Amino acid sequence: MKIIGIGLGLIGGSMLLSLRRFYENAEFLGIDSNDMHLQKAIQLKIIDHKAEDDDFMNANLVIISIPVDNAQNSIENCLEKVGEHTLVIDMGSTKQQLCEGLAKHPRRHQFLASHPIAGTEFSGPESAFETLFDHKTMIVCEIEKTDPKLQTLAMDCFQNMSMNIRFMHPKAHDVHMAYVSHLSHISSFMLGKTVIDKEDDERNIFDLAGSGFESTVRLAKSNPKTWVPIFKQNKTFVVEALSAYISNLEVFKTQLENENYDALFQSINKTNSLKDILDGIQ
Amino acid sequence: MKIIGIGLGLIGGSMLLSLRRFYENAEFLGIDSNDMHLQKAIQLKIIDHKAEDDDFMNANLVIISIPVDNAQNSIENCLEKVGEHTLVIDMGSTKQQLCEGLAKHPRRHQFLASHPIAGTEFSGPESAFETLFDHKTMIVCEIEKTDPKLQTLAMDCFQNMSMNIRFMHPKAHDVHMAYVSHLSHISSFMLGKTVIDKEDDERNIFDLAGSGFESTVRLAKSNPKTWVPIFKQNKTFVVEALSAYISNLEVFKTQLENENYDALFQSINKTNSLKDILDGIQ
Repeated sequence: MKIIGIGLGLIGGSMLLSLRRFYENAEFLGIDSNDMHLQKAIQLKIIDHKAEDDDFMNANLVIISIPVDNAQNSIENCLEKVGEHTLVIDMGSTKQQLCEGLAKHPRRHQFLASHPIAGTEFSGPESAFETLFDHKTMIVCEIEKTDPKLQTLAMDCFQNMSMNIRFMHPKAHDVHMAYVSHLSHISSFMLGKTVIDKEDDERNIFDLAGSGFESTVRLAKSNPKTWVPIFKQNKTFVVEALSAYISNLEVFKTQLENENYDALFQSINKTNSLKDILDGIQ
Repeated sequence: MKIIGIGLGLIGGSMLLSLRRFYENAEFLGIDSNDMHLQKAIQLKIIDHKAEDDDFMNANLVIISIPVDNAQNSIENCLEKVGEHTLVIDMGSTKQQLCEGLAKHPRRHQFLASHPIAGTEFSGPESAFETLFDHKTMIVCEIEKTDPKLQTLAMDCFQNMSMNIRFMHPKAHDVHMAYVSHLSHISSFMLGKTVIDKEDDERNIFDLAGSGFESTVRLAKSNPKTWVPIFKQNKTFVVEALSAYISNLEVFKTQLENENYDALFQSINKTNSLKDILDGIQ
């Protein structure tokens, strides 16, 4: 078994570390556009050594975990180099453009579009850990377009990590992600910006911000190299979600200005039902 | 030593549990507008028994931790019942209206306006725990208006809990809290609402929401009975903070619509400096 990771950051690194637990005798190779990350990944035993062009021909599995704006290019490049029995999996956070872009590729059947619902606000190989994906959801798009034998290899990998596999249409994936993931990041980035703009004295943020602020701006630490391409690729649905969010905030502001406290109470009370929903999220 | 708690929820309950560690021989009494909470507080040994009107006369300390819309009334009521050497402390999240309202009270010198920067999204006596305030910030307003001996009693209590005491003007307190606390709650409530409105199938939220969403909407579980009165009392500054936030979101949306990805990158990159700020928050 030979597994190659392209992109050895939080997602790619964790995926390889996770797989190492179940494929102990496999060879793990990798590539990263950042040479420091490549060296770090070797040092952290995420990979055994750098992958060379020749390695792709007899690889069983190539896992691509890079910013979404380079994903299609990288996948096409890979599909040209791999052998006939290699599976190429993408881990990116957007799926519609990618699936459309690859729809007519002659080796489409050797590709699987997937997206693990797991991450942290950190990035790079140092942030990778082997249990990141355990018991998390793995969204898989257009499974029917992937060769059945290669489907089985992918499902084996995901099931070894005890992931919950959920099959979705790429467009449905992107709409839902705009709301439950991409919007959270924007709300957090802009909350952080609003507070930084106001509090020019950093001491106020240190001293006065409690765990509530820390929790809501945690995602504001996320890397723009990852996130700007996601917002770009999912522009339509992100704008839709953001418009809905702004409109809810405007209603809240108007209710507060008009001292309509009953309406505020009802609105918050209804949102409290998230308690039950969130208690169900593992 | 006799200590009375008015309001035995997360804040009041935790304050009493915390003080019990340092005043082992003190008598702890309490009152709560919710009789179930009172019974629960006795059962959880937050208090020894219910406080009666007579108990106030020789109490050393009364700690008021109730929704901010009832705070002034409750404090005035207390100050009428207590003896000449009793200190009354308020723990509420807004300070300007309260301090103005009590400015001319004949027993103003027996009152201390304070606000601990600590909490969770939960409420009620069951959510209280003795270490909630350890090493957290305690904001104290208008300390000079409190009798020096009673100042000492308060400082002893807060220092026993290893709290970092910070003295602020009530108005400055309310401005800063609008940005670093109240705005976080609104952003979270409305993020939750936006997602619930969209995802009528709850399964999508369960399966598709990762830890990022969970973190940003954690505060959306907070109790409207606590929060609507805070927004009401701090209306001016909350509207100001909310307007700034909406305006930042509008700019982000316009930049995305106009495909000005460099501007998005710069904006997120600058906000990333929160990393350093947040790493400093304990």
